[in-house]
Amino acid sequence: MKSKNQPALLIIFGGTGDLAKKKLSAALYNIFKGEKTSENFAILSIGRKEISKDDYKNMIKEGIENSLNSNIKSKDWESFEEKIFYYSLEFNKGEDYKSLEKYISELEGKFDTKGNRLYYFAVSPEYFSVIANNLKQENMINQETGWKRVIIEKPFGKDLKTAQELNKELSEIFKEENTFRIDHYLGKEMIQNMMVIRFANAIFEPLWSAEHIDNVQLIVSEEEGVGSRGEYYDSSGAIRDMVQNHLLQLLALVTMEKPYDTNPESIRKEKVKVIKSISVLDKEDLKKHIVLGQYRGYKNEDKVNEDSNTETFVALKIFLKHEKWRGVPFYLMTGKRLKEKFAGIIIEFKANKDKESNLLYPEVTPNILFIKIQPEEGISLTLNAKKPATEEEITSVSMDFCQSCMLGYNSPQAYEKLLLDAIKGDHTRFTRWDEVEYAWKFIDELISCCTRDKNIIEEYEQGSNGPEGAKKLLERDNRRWWKE
Amino acid sequence: MKSKNQPALLIIFGGTGDLAKKKLSAALYNIFKGEKTSENFAILSIGRKEISKDDYKNMIKEGIENSLNSNIKSKDWESFEEKIFYYSLEFNKGEDYKSLEKYISELEGKFDTKGNRLYYFAVSPEYFSVIANNLKQENMINQETGWKRVIIEKPFGKDLKTAQELNKELSEIFKEENTFRIDHYLGKEMIQNMMVIRFANAIFEPLWSAEHIDNVQLIVSEEEGVGSRGEYYDSSGAIRDMVQNHLLQLLALVTMEKPYDTNPESIRKEKVKVIKSISVLDKEDLKKHIVLGQYRGYKNEDKVNEDSNTETFVALKIFLKHEKWRGVPFYLMTGKRLKEKFAGIIIEFKANKDKESNLLYPEVTPNILFIKIQPEEGISLTLNAKKPATEEEITSVSMDFCQSCMLGYNSPQAYEKLLLDAIKGDHTRFTRWDEVEYAWKFIDELISCCTRDKNIIEEYEQGSNGPEGAKKLLERDNRRWWKE
Repeated sequence: MKSKNQPALLIIFGGTGDLAKKKLSAALYNIFKGEKTSENFAILSIGRKEISKDDYKNMIKEGIENSLNSNIKSKDWESFEEKIFYYSLEFNKGEDYKSLEKYISELEGKFDTKGNRLYYFAVSPEYFSVIANNLKQENMINQETGWKRVIIEKPFGKDLKTAQELNKELSEIFKEENTFRIDHYLGKEMIQNMMVIRFANAIFEPLWSAEHIDNVQLIVSEEEGVGSRGEYYDSSGAIRDMVQNHLLQLLALVTMEKPYDTNPESIRKEKVKVIKSISVLDKEDLKKHIVLGQYRGYKNEDKVNEDSNTETFVALKIFLKHEKWRGVPFYLMTGKRLKEKFAGIIIEFKANKDKESNLLYPEVTPNILFIKIQPEEGISLTLNAKKPATEEEITSVSMDFCQSCMLGYNSPQAYEKLLLDAIKGDHTRFTRWDEVEYAWKFIDELISCCTRDKNIIEEYEQGSNGPEGAKKLLERDNRRWWKE
Repeated sequence: MKSKNQPALLIIFGGTGDLAKKKLSAALYNIFKGEKTSENFAILSIGRKEISKDDYKNMIKEGIENSLNSNIKSKDWESFEEKIFYYSLEFNKGEDYKSLEKYISELEGKFDTKGNRLYYFAVSPEYFSVIANNLKQENMINQETGWKRVIIEKPFGKDLKTAQELNKELSEIFKEENTFRIDHYLGKEMIQNMMVIRFANAIFEPLWSAEHIDNVQLIVSEEEGVGSRGEYYDSSGAIRDMVQNHLLQLLALVTMEKPYDTNPESIRKEKVKVIKSISVLDKEDLKKHIVLGQYRGYKNEDKVNEDSNTETFVALKIFLKHEKWRGVPFYLMTGKRLKEKFAGIIIEFKANKDKESNLLYPEVTPNILFIKIQPEEGISLTLNAKKPATEEEITSVSMDFCQSCMLGYNSPQAYEKLLLDAIKGDHTRFTRWDEVEYAWKFIDELISCCTRDKNIIEEYEQGSNGPEGAKKLLERDNRRWWKE
């Protein structure tokens, strides 16, 4: 279904960076090709590099073709490239924003974008407030001449304190309603689908509590290492890089109460309640519930400290302070250089395996609901069935629904969705400040308890399932990871 | 898995009939090829026709090849045919049973079958007690010289009174423990699977009641007409032919309480409780809950009365007198010459479609669990999911598990299972006398209320979904058949 969006000028700070080149460009190209933007739409990329408009366009074209793994037809490219502009700027040179404003005004005139501007901060976090302040200085945030919104990429701070400081600065310039904190995970089709799965299917809600769920496993595993992000990553680590945002978002989506309606605020309210309810243990208990790992060879990565104690893997057992989830462990796991790229939520239902009270079928595998996010998107449910042509044998079978299969491999990419939402002003898939705040409160506890401690971090082989400790964490509870 | 069974001689009365030729022979051949019978096993077919052993074997071979839709390799046939014997007999000539006994004894000696005999009454019901009495007369039921069991094909009586009379006569000769009343539906892989599905999957039991189930649809539709069974069918009709046995069996399997263990008696006890609990309405109400049909052209079928008011279609709404199923309608439907051959159970779960109290997703399709028995065997579950690449649209998707796919199309046929069970002495998949008795009590009510009434029977087109009344029966309740 095609639905035209509002007129807007998208202004990307960090236009020559990896994010813009690889992900944003491809998303924008798809949106444009799908005729989902208004005709009054253009893209202005701003970077520090002094390159020509043509060189920039070639760079973007190459990025899109690599991303989509196919060549762009010249006809398609011609109509798209007319929308792309490049402007060179040192972000911290306040005096140069006046001419930037002049250039923007010209584009606004040319494309009749009604003064609506979506600023996208695809830059290092240290530039967030610099750019915002310079924009304010030149009256470029004036809401009276069309809306002015900002999309901020993670990380939003590196702990509670810095996040609060950053928020204070930004919120003086952009109101909460104009601020879109991106978590590109939230744009994934299957995550958006989570709400529908849970609340539009009457059969799931009665099962969705401690009464019927034994444990929940939230997993984001990556095959790749730190790559060119060594410097950032080494000061950050897996907890800040992945748990604080992606994994806690998954946790919120899978456990939140049914929102009153589909209004973004109704939904975010329920998500915040979950993040708030994470049960923080005392230090000694916390240490028993956390496993940290570092892949062999990490210390030799580019721009990584050779004595680094930064975790590239974390497994974590947490609980929620909520009647409904009493006693249900949530096992979170994420890491780099693991065997497989996978993101998903695994719900293990309780099974009556008590031989005293269940004489009928005591030896069964529990029912498992897999909500797969990456690389495949879809859900599957494992059931026990009689093994055909046998008398009594029970076998575990799987019912599958593949969301990505439904569309071939053409599932809309996360960024397409998010960009369209921001232009539309829909906050559902962006994180509200208090979500970020409560997440950092919990993450600070974790970090202050356990990270950067040589004695805790276990080394693991590249391409493995992570450190032994992660396996033991569940074995101690007589459980297992269902994705290995 | 191969498991050798007990030594036995299978003695089929009605060896030249359709059942023996088409179904039993193919089942026996498969069992034999799969090495599931003891080596001390042989088959004696008894028929009224005077034909040579070789002619009989050719007839059987042709029947098997037609059934299996492939030619038998001569090597395979040679080892199988050594087990087959034919004996010609007028069933009601008591004086001829002495020489039959002599012939049987010889075979028993030859194959060392330890005196175990499985009598299979594949004859018209009028011969059941005739044969049984003659067998008794000649001391051919003597349990001391190995077990003597009997398999009886349906119909077991034509109403409660005749069923009771028949039972009285037979039970004086064969004890309940040696009587195997066949309902070949119970041999279907997927029906046997029902118990596993329900009780080995912890997620279903909490949903399995009036609290979460809106209605249950039990359907057995046939494409074929009455064929050569006109005489029997015209005096019987769809209610006796299909509802009394198959449909009530399905009803029992889908609603019975969890049996204490897998012991056949534990299971049959629970099934009987269901049949007993069918709520019998008074005549006026019953008439509102029943739809009878007759396909156009039925009256011209061979051996059918040209003024026949026999129903070839019935749709029925019933309730169970059970707290757990209070208010849940069970819609039963069966008929001949319908659009499609299909047998299955459809469970429609409740959906909160109240726009006042469900602002989130009021416009959803209910979740439906399909338990498919024929022609495909498997289960599927329809769920609501977000339509990919759309904002809010919800679409109904299906998760499937195909039991027959798992084995190619090689799912073991119903009769193979049942024959092996009877040789083994396992009653699970056979009907106990009181099940038959309670079923007839209910069926008698139906028949005395409504059948053979020209004013009630609706004519329907061959190849259709049956009479309009069936559709209306559900529409009146704001419901629909999920299989059309």
